[in-house]
Amino acid sequence: MADKKMILGMTLNSGYGNISGAWRAPEVDPGNYANIESNIRYAQAAERGGFAFLFTPDFPTVRGDVEFSGIQNIMEPMMALAAISQATSNIGFIATGSTTFQEPFNTARQFKALDAMSHGRAGWNAVTTSDSMVSANYGRPVADRAERYQRANEAIQIVQALWGSWEKDAWIKDQASGRFLDASKLRPVNLQGEHVASRGPLPIPPSEQGQPIIFTSGGPSPHLLELAGRYASGFIAEVWTIEEARAQRQMVRDAAERAGRNPDEIKYIPGLMTTVAPTVRAGLDRRLALSGDVIEARLPHVGALLGLQLDPSRYDQPLTEAQLRAAHASPMDPRSGIVLKVAREGWSPRDILAHGVIDFHPTTVGPAEVHADHLQEWLEAGAADGFWLSPDIYEDGVDAFVDEVVPELRRRGIFPEEYVGSTLRENLGVPAQYGLDPRVAGGTS
Amino acid sequence: MADKKMILGMTLNSGYGNISGAWRAPEVDPGNYANIESNIRYAQAAERGGFAFLFTPDFPTVRGDVEFSGIQNIMEPMMALAAISQATSNIGFIATGSTTFQEPFNTARQFKALDAMSHGRAGWNAVTTSDSMVSANYGRPVADRAERYQRANEAIQIVQALWGSWEKDAWIKDQASGRFLDASKLRPVNLQGEHVASRGPLPIPPSEQGQPIIFTSGGPSPHLLELAGRYASGFIAEVWTIEEARAQRQMVRDAAERAGRNPDEIKYIPGLMTTVAPTVRAGLDRRLALSGDVIEARLPHVGALLGLQLDPSRYDQPLTEAQLRAAHASPMDPRSGIVLKVAREGWSPRDILAHGVIDFHPTTVGPAEVHADHLQEWLEAGAADGFWLSPDIYEDGVDAFVDEVVPELRRRGIFPEEYVGSTLRENLGVPAQYGLDPRVAGGTS
Repeated sequence: MADKKMILGMTLNSGYGNISGAWRAPEVDPGNYANIESNIRYAQAAERGGFAFLFTPDFPTVRGDVEFSGIQNIMEPMMALAAISQATSNIGFIATGSTTFQEPFNTARQFKALDAMSHGRAGWNAVTTSDSMVSANYGRPVADRAERYQRANEAIQIVQALWGSWEKDAWIKDQASGRFLDASKLRPVNLQGEHVASRGPLPIPPSEQGQPIIFTSGGPSPHLLELAGRYASGFIAEVWTIEEARAQRQMVRDAAERAGRNPDEIKYIPGLMTTVAPTVRAGLDRRLALSGDVIEARLPHVGALLGLQLDPSRYDQPLTEAQLRAAHASPMDPRSGIVLKVAREGWSPRDILAHGVIDFHPTTVGPAEVHADHLQEWLEAGAADGFWLSPDIYEDGVDAFVDEVVPELRRRGIFPEEYVGSTLRENLGVPAQYGLDPRVAGGTS
Repeated sequence: MADKKMILGMTLNSGYGNISGAWRAPEVDPGNYANIESNIRYAQAAERGGFAFLFTPDFPTVRGDVEFSGIQNIMEPMMALAAISQATSNIGFIATGSTTFQEPFNTARQFKALDAMSHGRAGWNAVTTSDSMVSANYGRPVADRAERYQRANEAIQIVQALWGSWEKDAWIKDQASGRFLDASKLRPVNLQGEHVASRGPLPIPPSEQGQPIIFTSGGPSPHLLELAGRYASGFIAEVWTIEEARAQRQMVRDAAERAGRNPDEIKYIPGLMTTVAPTVRAGLDRRLALSGDVIEARLPHVGALLGLQLDPSRYDQPLTEAQLRAAHASPMDPRSGIVLKVAREGWSPRDILAHGVIDFHPTTVGPAEVHADHLQEWLEAGAADGFWLSPDIYEDGVDAFVDEVVPELRRRGIFPEEYVGSTLRENLGVPAQYGLDPRVAGGTS
């Protein structure tokens, strides 16, 4: 474990950042959502820091308070990553793509094309879609979970089979003899599922890493764990605590083992939101400046999370000793333990929220050591193989992490000094695979 | 008509060229199919020549003699064009996309994202798919024509409605007031067709040209003409003769008029294959060097096209006067008139074929005047508003056209001296449109 180094990835979204109001930051161009140029800059900054991958979550509908909070989703993941692939050379691309609303042949084709174009840097975060707003964009009702996962199993198998349908040594391209390829090695897959099917072959040659890497993400339902165990080389997690993460990582590893695989073949990657600042106070102020309204609206929740009645007139003062003695974390909400821990450090309710304690992920705020401590603790506790980071504001937050935190991680010997290679497989430490994995292909759940 | 200037586009395919065996040309890297870098170079060369657009035909299956002829299809059009968009600034992108096997929401999203990323340079060549090999890749039978076109009508309307669902003035992005957008101007489309449906909205703002431009292509069936008349701003044609092209262009224009539009709003664009060389003889030799085998195999057809019995031992000699007197073009095959014309110029059967007379398009071979004469003749005869060119070998064929033919066209005053603007609409001379065209929306054919 002492030698274990972490994988780092960065989420890429609308070009602003991952805190509410990031689009309003003075250093941010509020038109960034439509400017791929900004995401290219952020990708290059992450590559400068040795990040293994960019990750594009995708929720293709309009949700939340877009009127004031802005948009938190990239316009379209595949087109953006195709563009970014040409402006980078080592960082990988893990794009979320739905098994529910994409045709497997199209998915196989676009991802393998991205893999070829990027010289072996593509990954597919294969997810099912259960949201009714998204389903409505495709004019269909939400399918039940069993059906969604049946289709997901079929889709992933078809996609992987199509990826392998141009055999590794099929491409002869001998100008002298005039033989372009060995057509007997470009073969139909003829897979017929209950929901999706494809004949193939897919005429795209292997990339430098063979084929794209499968990820999955979400809450660890039995269906998802089985899917992850069978197909995924990476699991993008959303967990709040080390304990939760360790347990979930073990569940994912067990699922891989049940599918006949080595559990080290699947990388468990929880998220972290980061605000890098000279001091914790400066970081909290940076967050309050943009998310002040959202934090204001959430103040009444702080008391509830601690089992206390808090006086609104004292939201800017630390909790009293009596309050801290009376406070208790709810075993039902993992965030309440974090709230209590921060409260005990002497922060006011407003500052507690500015720590990001009830945002989507754990949040670290402050100088390099704060972030490095969190990452190291989780890594060494066996709670993570790597992390996907969500910077508060891309425009300066990526550079700050790269310039301040990455050197600290390297000093501690827990982050690679440079890219292991130029493919995503090399940089994730994921074994070679081409076509279906013979250990898990065949049946469907 | 004297002032009319032509539009030029260039087809983009597998990175070799449009004659059989192009992948074997000594100047060509036989690995180009998987190297987006080569297509980027060719795109930049076309942009240097003032080409209005790149066009990606798409036939997503393996067909023909791939073992020896190579592949003639780009790996994946949208990913390639997204990459190319970042390495160019004026040339547009017309990508073929199936209305039969794509979800309208995905089509709308990827094309509008490309339009945003390229700052207003995207177009969609909306086609139905009837090929059984392609259908099999999607695990579905071929639908009959009426059903395919019903779905196409629905899909195009949904796509255009989604494009317009972020209203032009919806995006406020006022950092001071904190108002990101006017959510009342980002509205569902709620279109429910018989085959496809979508709720929307699509959260992508208008590009510099508003929304992508619709093209269509194919043989002029009544169904396709009606579709073109209602929705298309461009029609990609495959025709052999001026007469055919004039008649077809008129049919397309009439269809637009029937749909209540101005016929000048739809640009009729036939194809041309080009071999630029110092002399016709040098051009024929360039073609024979790569396509010699294919030409050899086709030699028996020359006689049939002319109604003659030709002696294989005389394939390298011009036809005799007696043969030329006896020869007659078949009214059934428009190519036979071209064969006869070339035969009368004194070329041998092998050289007649080297003129490309039975390739997919008219072909011009030789110095700049040959190409300019063809283009000017068609333009001035009212047989075309522009042309999509298929260079024989991209590696040097694009530069040769740009350096030699484009200046000649400009000398003749039939090609613009520079880009009219930086959007595809400006460079095609196509009027503004955002959302559905109110003149044609509503019913479906």
